[in-house]
Amino acid sequence: MRTGTPVTVLGLGLMGSALAGAFLRAGHPTTVWNRTTAKADDLVAGGATLAESPADAIAAAPLVVVCVSDYDAVADVLKGPLHGRVVVNLTSGTPSRARALAEEVTRRGGDYLGGGIMAVPEAVGTADAVIAYSGPRSLYDAHGSTLGKLGTGLHLGDDPGLSATHEMGTLILMWGMLDGFLNGAAILGAAGVSATAYLPIARTAIDTVAGWLPGYARQVDDGVYPPDDGTVDTHLAAMAHVIEESETLGINTELPRLVKALAERAATEGHAASGYPALVEQFRKP
Amino acid sequence: MRTGTPVTVLGLGLMGSALAGAFLRAGHPTTVWNRTTAKADDLVAGGATLAESPADAIAAAPLVVVCVSDYDAVADVLKGPLHGRVVVNLTSGTPSRARALAEEVTRRGGDYLGGGIMAVPEAVGTADAVIAYSGPRSLYDAHGSTLGKLGTGLHLGDDPGLSATHEMGTLILMWGMLDGFLNGAAILGAAGVSATAYLPIARTAIDTVAGWLPGYARQVDDGVYPPDDGTVDTHLAAMAHVIEESETLGINTELPRLVKALAERAATEGHAASGYPALVEQFRKP
Ligand SMILES: NC(=O)c1ccc[n+]([C@@H]2O[C@H](COP(=O)([O-])OP(=O)(O)OC[C@H]3O[C@@H](n4cnc5c(N)ncnc54)[C@H](OP(=O)(O)O)[C@@H]3O)[C@@H](O)[C@H]2O)c1
Ligand SMILES: NC(=O)c1ccc[n+]([C@@H]2O[C@H](COP(=O)([O-])OP(=O)(O)OC[C@H]3O[C@@H](n4cnc5c(N)ncnc54)[C@H](OP(=O)(O)O)[C@@H]3O)[C@@H](O)[C@H]2O)c1
Repeated sequence: MRTGTPVTVLGLGLMGSALAGAFLRAGHPTTVWNRTTAKADDLVAGGATLAESPADAIAAAPLVVVCVSDYDAVADVLKGPLHGRVVVNLTSGTPSRARALAEEVTRRGGDYLGGGIMAVPEAVGTADAVIAYSGPRSLYDAHGSTLGKLGTGLHLGDDPGLSATHEMGTLILMWGMLDGFLNGAAILGAAGVSATAYLPIARTAIDTVAGWLPGYARQVDDGVYPPDDGTVDTHLAAMAHVIEESETLGINTELPRLVKALAERAATEGHAASGYPALVEQFRKP
Repeated sequence: MRTGTPVTVLGLGLMGSALAGAFLRAGHPTTVWNRTTAKADDLVAGGATLAESPADAIAAAPLVVVCVSDYDAVADVLKGPLHGRVVVNLTSGTPSRARALAEEVTRRGGDYLGGGIMAVPEAVGTADAVIAYSGPRSLYDAHGSTLGKLGTGLHLGDDPGLSATHEMGTLILMWGMLDGFLNGAAILGAAGVSATAYLPIARTAIDTVAGWLPGYARQVDDGVYPPDDGTVDTHLAAMAHVIEESETLGINTELPRLVKALAERAATEGHAASGYPALVEQFRKP
């Protein structure tokens, strides 16, 4: 017997399927819908109820989780009245679209929570999957324990766009890290070292940089960038080496060139002898 | 009384001073030299011996650590005969210059170890400071315990350029991460969220991405990129959102644009439905 709050999941792509699976494993009566019906097969075999339409799925449960490609797709699936429904939108998009959607959901009689998933589908349903929510605190408090079945929940604030803002900040950090790692793997690969052999050193670098961030965050907030741990000029010299060596190895130089261009602008604007966080001023400019 | 192997440190910038300080604290008789003499004052007050010239400094100890701005500066300081000297070069530069320097040191009667410091000066002298060495294994074995006073040592292999190669791979990852963090801080800052408030989410993102890397490294080595955890196309949609939102906020879009251009090229070359590590193929191309 499935107990607990009935839930609905709209969208059964890689992420939506993982969300519905986590609810099912936690024993929630789970209704699902997906444009391409076949993607529901495994979930139905596992105990989920397949709805015939998005409106039927929405009618089936008070808590409706939406996870589709983008906000245009959200508009396509979120049809019909929403009275008494809490819509939890875990689709990625901009904060302004999140806010507009929150208004529309409210206008149609529902309540809205936005969420950003900071995890891959495999991690969903474990504490490793962090999901950052925003929207009315009372709504989060009322549904936090059900949403907790999906992963570790965080409530960021009442503005329904905040989770999208945080997701953007997380994504650019994630891509910077991933592209840095893949670029590093390309450098080492060209020198005959495998990505697996690069891994321990990469891991050390990540832990080291992560250890700097609390101090760097304070510097960013204070607008003061003491050069205790190496100046922008020292970084610039090393950036030139990486470009030179990448050219020698015949690999891509776009990322080191952008990194250097940003540091050069910081140096030109008086930060040659400042610490690296001075670059935040470049990122703040269009 | 200072016991242990006498050591010499050439170059007392931010990093060189930290290296000499760590040797002093560990009780090694430490000779120092710096172009700008005043930078030696604190170390001399702490027990170091100031040499009058680089050649005098080199003559003073069998183990000579060099840490100056770049390889041109190394050429300026590494004057005179090197018989019976082990030169440990911790200056950043390209692998080819490291190999050329190793040959020259050997020709002049010395032995050479290259090293890349993966730490900031404050961490030097603690286990948190990882230093990756390359060059003859026997040389590393003979001096590993003295070098261990500087931090955690790793020996990468006999090729004296290997530590520089690893340093490049580490640096690009570090800059990718730092620029991603500072760009994220700029996004959140424009939305009224401080960098300090962004920190816990950034930290979660870093831990999450770090957890993916062992699997991604295997995919890079195997050249197979299953889309288990989101496709290049899904990332592309999110990249478009980040650019759109950055424009709305009036902040820099260069990093997300480069990230998107690389992903678009991967998609065009047949990897739209592959996982993110497929981008390594773009980084391998000039
Ligand atoms: N995958 C991850 O690692 C990850 C991590 C964090 C956040 N996210 C976010 O989660 C969301 C979904 O990602 P995903 O990986 O699950 O993507 P996906 O595997 O490509 O799935 C996309 C889903 O959206 C549906 N869809 C698209 N357009 C539609 C429309 N017009 N009408 C109805 N349904 C439509 C698809 O239905 P069909 O099956 O019929 O095509 C499918 O269910 C995205 O916003 C993504 O940014 C994903
Ligand atoms: N700082 C870090 O966090 C860090 C981390 C890893 C690796 N590194 C590497 O460590 C090395 C040194 O960095 P740093 O932060 O110590 O730089 P720094 O503070 O700028 O110091 C540079 C040193 O090089 C000397 N120098 C430059 N040109 C010279 C020349 N022609 N002749 C003689 N001496 C010369 C300087 O002497 P003066 O004092 O007379 O100018 C000074 O001692 C660099 O290769 C850097 O990439 C640094």
